[in-house]
Amino acid sequence: MSEALILPVQPLTRERFAPFGDVIEASDAARHFTINGGNTERYHDLANLAAGPEGRVIASIFRGQPRQLPFVVEMMERHPLGSQAFVPLNAQRYLVVVAAAGEAPTADKLQCFLALGTQGVNYATGVWHHPLLALDSISDFLVLDRQGSGANCDEIQLASPAKIVI
Amino acid sequence: MSEALILPVQPLTRERFAPFGDVIEASDAARHFTINGGNTERYHDLANLAAGPEGRVIASIFRGQPRQLPFVVEMMERHPLGSQAFVPLNAQRYLVVVAAAGEAPTADKLQCFLALGTQGVNYATGVWHHPLLALDSISDFLVLDRQGSGANCDEIQLASPAKIVI
Repeated sequence: MSEALILPVQPLTRERFAPFGDVIEASDAARHFTINGGNTERYHDLANLAAGPEGRVIASIFRGQPRQLPFVVEMMERHPLGSQAFVPLNAQRYLVVVAAAGEAPTADKLQCFLALGTQGVNYATGVWHHPLLALDSISDFLVLDRQGSGANCDEIQLASPAKIVI
Repeated sequence: MSEALILPVQPLTRERFAPFGDVIEASDAARHFTINGGNTERYHDLANLAAGPEGRVIASIFRGQPRQLPFVVEMMERHPLGSQAFVPLNAQRYLVVVAAAGEAPTADKLQCFLALGTQGVNYATGVWHHPLLALDSISDFLVLDRQGSGANCDEIQLASPAKIVI
């Protein structure tokens, strides 16, 4: 395997992540309003959940083992028929590696974000991403993705890997 | 107002909650399988998310102020057109008060559950429930409910209240 390209780690913000999907967080930048007689603030409709006409949105929990750092990215995947959201349930940080929807990416097309434990992500339909990259300890995530007919997972191996160093 | 009936608090289990909806938790009782090359356990499709033909499932965050105990239940609500799920994001316990779908409940028809911070709940369509009852501190929840046309919230006042004591 060729030498790994170093993949810089960026903070996760809704602006930077916009080409790839949504950041799910209780931010003042989101539409929000008070309900339940003043008890509760609702941050409303934070992700474009897409399952297509032949699918439905389902809720699952993913329990990920922590990855070892430095982590080498050797493969990517995409879901061509629906979005996929991850919301951390243990308030723990994790890594997100993405590339734009379209042709299979090379290592130089990847972007890596460090998500805080208060931030979920929703990968838009067809956006290339690496499978769950938990850090620090075993971490649970609520996952919202598509159930339905049709093949909804493509995987590729990178010709040349990328190495994440934090 | 008449004297409040005392509402006992039960532990939340999927069996006890089954008449009202789903418990969303990474339990061995759920269908689960290993993915991502052995890194991740997927607890699959944990809730019957219902939005009907005229609606869609959306994801929001509710930030609830903690309730004071003992708490007096004076009202209940239901969503006749879709389910509503709450999943805690701070791993904090909370209270759930429900009554069966159908005619408006009286205090003696209520059931109260103490949910652990690792347990979400999904109220099935039409199930009566009290709005969010966070405990201990300000608590965030991922909420999955229905967006769409039509009136989807009915509220009732209880003729006689119920008091939760933990």
